[in-house]
Amino acid sequence: MTSSRPTAAARPGSVSLRRRGPVLERAILDAALEQLSTVGWGGLTMEGVAAGARTGKAAVYRRWPSKADLVADALRAGLPELEDAPDHGGIREDLYDVCRRVRDAMLSEPGLALRSVLHQCDVNTAERFQAVIVGGMIEPSIALFREVISRGVARGEVRGDAMSGMVLDVIPAMMMYRSKVCGSEWPDDEIAQMIDQVMVPIFRA
Amino acid sequence: MTSSRPTAAARPGSVSLRRRGPVLERAILDAALEQLSTVGWGGLTMEGVAAGARTGKAAVYRRWPSKADLVADALRAGLPELEDAPDHGGIREDLYDVCRRVRDAMLSEPGLALRSVLHQCDVNTAERFQAVIVGGMIEPSIALFREVISRGVARGEVRGDAMSGMVLDVIPAMMMYRSKVCGSEWPDDEIAQMIDQVMVPIFRA
Repeated sequence: MTSSRPTAAARPGSVSLRRRGPVLERAILDAALEQLSTVGWGGLTMEGVAAGARTGKAAVYRRWPSKADLVADALRAGLPELEDAPDHGGIREDLYDVCRRVRDAMLSEPGLALRSVLHQCDVNTAERFQAVIVGGMIEPSIALFREVISRGVARGEVRGDAMSGMVLDVIPAMMMYRSKVCGSEWPDDEIAQMIDQVMVPIFRA
Repeated sequence: MTSSRPTAAARPGSVSLRRRGPVLERAILDAALEQLSTVGWGGLTMEGVAAGARTGKAAVYRRWPSKADLVADALRAGLPELEDAPDHGGIREDLYDVCRRVRDAMLSEPGLALRSVLHQCDVNTAERFQAVIVGGMIEPSIALFREVISRGVARGEVRGDAMSGMVLDVIPAMMMYRSKVCGSEWPDDEIAQMIDQVMVPIFRA
């Protein structure tokens, strides 16, 4: 599969890379994440991102009218997928699996960038990034929790009336709270403790 | 109890109010909260606070070397006390009572000011104010939860091994999460739902 012709991406001096649509967009979003990790929210500029993606400023502004729009999209696209709900045949194992994925997403580079941007931007922009956390991490994780819990109910392992909104909020709430307030990075044994001390008793018939 | 002589605080034009120690400190802290509610963290200055407290800038700097020191103390002093643990004879009633006090503290003027300052200041100062939330609201509330739960254990109402650190974090975690993510102001019926759907099952023997 080696080719003697250099690909577009391998020609550093090239003025026009002739990239279009999704390929150029991906390069711009990657450059935005790169800028974020090196110069932070305060230092990131549309010009810098354009230079990093080796394109013109107009190509960036055509797609994203503002820095906040661009960064929100870059973070959303960069967050790891939580994948399909696991099915290990037991509620403890399934919750443990989902929690580890959520923890890994929180500690991924875009996950950490999202958190630090929230601390660096102004109040209105923060709302925007808060929505990225909700749409990109919290809602997908709650969907997985809902699925593994309902499977637990079907198996008779979880009491039937356990699946209220309040119960579904407990794990995301604990993960946010202990990261923020206790500085926890949620090592595996803390995840197991939360499941055994908090969730298993809630689910008991 | 009416007096014909005006008190020091009632003489608006007076240059020296001759207040000392705690009285002057209280006036400065009040002026800082006042400034915070009118001009916000960005607009608050040591000069403005000194003028508001009708004292000199030196009197402010002598006690608080920086704006962050002053505002942190003002918020800490302004937060309502959570008072002693209630004892209604039942875990549901006791938790409900403590949760309502925590909610009222969160929604008090200094509680709301604390939240908005956190969004307006830089990252390092935010850590400082985060510590005010932990020391001024979270830790006192956990102490109350611990007390009412241990009384529930003594009554045989709550299983003996329920009082782990993880369980004590559940209510503060839920209160922070649903305020932040769902915009909840924790009306009484949501507090009751959380207790019945989440806490009562956790405590069940």
